[in-house]
Amino acid sequence: MDMTALLQGLDLVGTFAFGLSGATLAVRHRLDLVGVLALAVAAALAGGMIRDALLGATPAAALTDGRLLLTALGAGLAGFFFHRALNRLRKPVLVLDALGLGLFAVTGCRRALDHGLDPLPSLILGVLTAVGGGAVRDVLVAEVPRVLREEIYALAALVGGLVLVAGLRLGLPEPAVALAAVAAAFVLRIVSVLRGWSAPRPPGT
Amino acid sequence: MDMTALLQGLDLVGTFAFGLSGATLAVRHRLDLVGVLALAVAAALAGGMIRDALLGATPAAALTDGRLLLTALGAGLAGFFFHRALNRLRKPVLVLDALGLGLFAVTGCRRALDHGLDPLPSLILGVLTAVGGGAVRDVLVAEVPRVLREEIYALAALVGGLVLVAGLRLGLPEPAVALAAVAAAFVLRIVSVLRGWSAPRPPGT
Amino acid sequence: MDMTALLQGLDLVGTFAFGLSGATLAVRHRLDLVGVLALAVAAALAGGMIRDALLGATPAAALTDGRLLLTALGAGLAGFFFHRALNRLRKPVLVLDALGLGLFAVTGCRRALDHGLDPLPSLILGVLTAVGGGAVRDVLVAEVPRVLREEIYALAALVGGLVLVAGLRLGLPEPAVALAAVAAAFVLRIVSVLRGWSAPRPPGT
Repeated sequence: MDMTALLQGLDLVGTFAFGLSGATLAVRHRLDLVGVLALAVAAALAGGMIRDALLGATPAAALTDGRLLLTALGAGLAGFFFHRALNRLRKPVLVLDALGLGLFAVTGCRRALDHGLDPLPSLILGVLTAVGGGAVRDVLVAEVPRVLREEIYALAALVGGLVLVAGLRLGLPEPAVALAAVAAAFVLRIVSVLRGWSAPRPPGT
Repeated sequence: MDMTALLQGLDLVGTFAFGLSGATLAVRHRLDLVGVLALAVAAALAGGMIRDALLGATPAAALTDGRLLLTALGAGLAGFFFHRALNRLRKPVLVLDALGLGLFAVTGCRRALDHGLDPLPSLILGVLTAVGGGAVRDVLVAEVPRVLREEIYALAALVGGLVLVAGLRLGLPEPAVALAAVAAAFVLRIVSVLRGWSAPRPPGT
Repeated sequence: MDMTALLQGLDLVGTFAFGLSGATLAVRHRLDLVGVLALAVAAALAGGMIRDALLGATPAAALTDGRLLLTALGAGLAGFFFHRALNRLRKPVLVLDALGLGLFAVTGCRRALDHGLDPLPSLILGVLTAVGGGAVRDVLVAEVPRVLREEIYALAALVGGLVLVAGLRLGLPEPAVALAAVAAAFVLRIVSVLRGWSAPRPPGT
């Protein structure tokens, strides 16, 4: 089985799901076509763009791999035309989004390790890849990013990165480690939504 | 005729116009001198800065071509001291802003092509160069960027980029193509303001 | 005396103080653990990250010097658990923040000069290093950045940079110049708080 092709294909699925999250938020805020496409691209690609700019891995992957931009723009158009249908598809979209979360965390962390970073900054960069696009998306509609306020989202990405780093340290085969890491983030995210888990709050607030 | 010098001169005109838009918004939000200068610099230069960071065309042009920073700071000071006069000059400022829009789209797209990017990401980067500064400017005063909500603005930049890419594909002489591309964006922007055109909205909203 | 080690040690103190400012703002906005850590990291490191991305000094220092990230995360945890105690320590935190302001302005300006930039863009980049993290911090909670609205903050950073550039131009020994520059920014910031000085506002507002 070609694991690299599988991961890349899944990455596009995650890109599409993230793009949908941007497009539907834009529709809710009554933005126009430009706003819908911009929020789709921001949600899908800004996390990886920030990662690449900080790493010096330029031109950023979002600019050299044409499929990423096309997928994000496609998600924007889908959100623009079918936003009412999408509102009835919240559960499947949530599942795809959780998949994207795990994939972006793992590929972002891997890319940082490939550039010679230590495990801790690589973990942080993996999380930033996974949640940065959503944060930019929310800032563009003048909202406090959801990832900072509620639910288990960044922590799921962190767990995915931890599984990746630990597995590679132990010398396990990379394809299996990558899949396990994506699965860990995905499962934690889904379970936390089902159970209504939240990240801890400061004591006494 | 020296077309490069002409385009560079026009670029400074656009930089000044964009800087004025940042300064006047800052005055409206009752920011202090620092805020006025910061919004002028952000509006005039942040689009190109983001473009260069994503391309890896570093240090960013805004840091190496001293005229850009001086022009943006000059626009900030002009807005700080003469904001009341500028309120009476809305039409000329709008014309200069439309010129800057076309110029930034075309030079941003060209710079992306020069770095070996494909036409689609180059177009997107041209649009980002043209509208990114205004978006950062609006985010800094906690507003949803105007470019995402109303009027024909990013679409005019996109049309300018399309003319550039198509003209170069056809092998036409670059100076003429660049001028035609700037003119296309400029005219579409001006006509859309005169006619009150807006970008389309999602169906059913 | 080893001046480099002294400046680096002080830099971590500044990083910690900036991180505390992010953490306490996050607690005030009722963010969760992720939000507190994210705002601590943003406040402490985003200014330097933006500087490095624009310079092309990548991977950014915040990713390669592990102490910076650990210090910022430590400040986040301290703010998360001890936010009530920190509210009673406003004056010491203000002093540390002013120290960080001067240090970040001077090290940011120096890094830009080392990359061959002219004095003016180096000054601007020093100021951006010093105030950029706080601006990102404020944008993430949907507030207009404080640095654009009130008090002498960016101007103190600018004065620190000016002392550095002037001292190096005059050929004075760099360690002494750097210390004097940090001190100038620090003193101006502290005095401006004690006296209630503000940056000037646009005439007629």
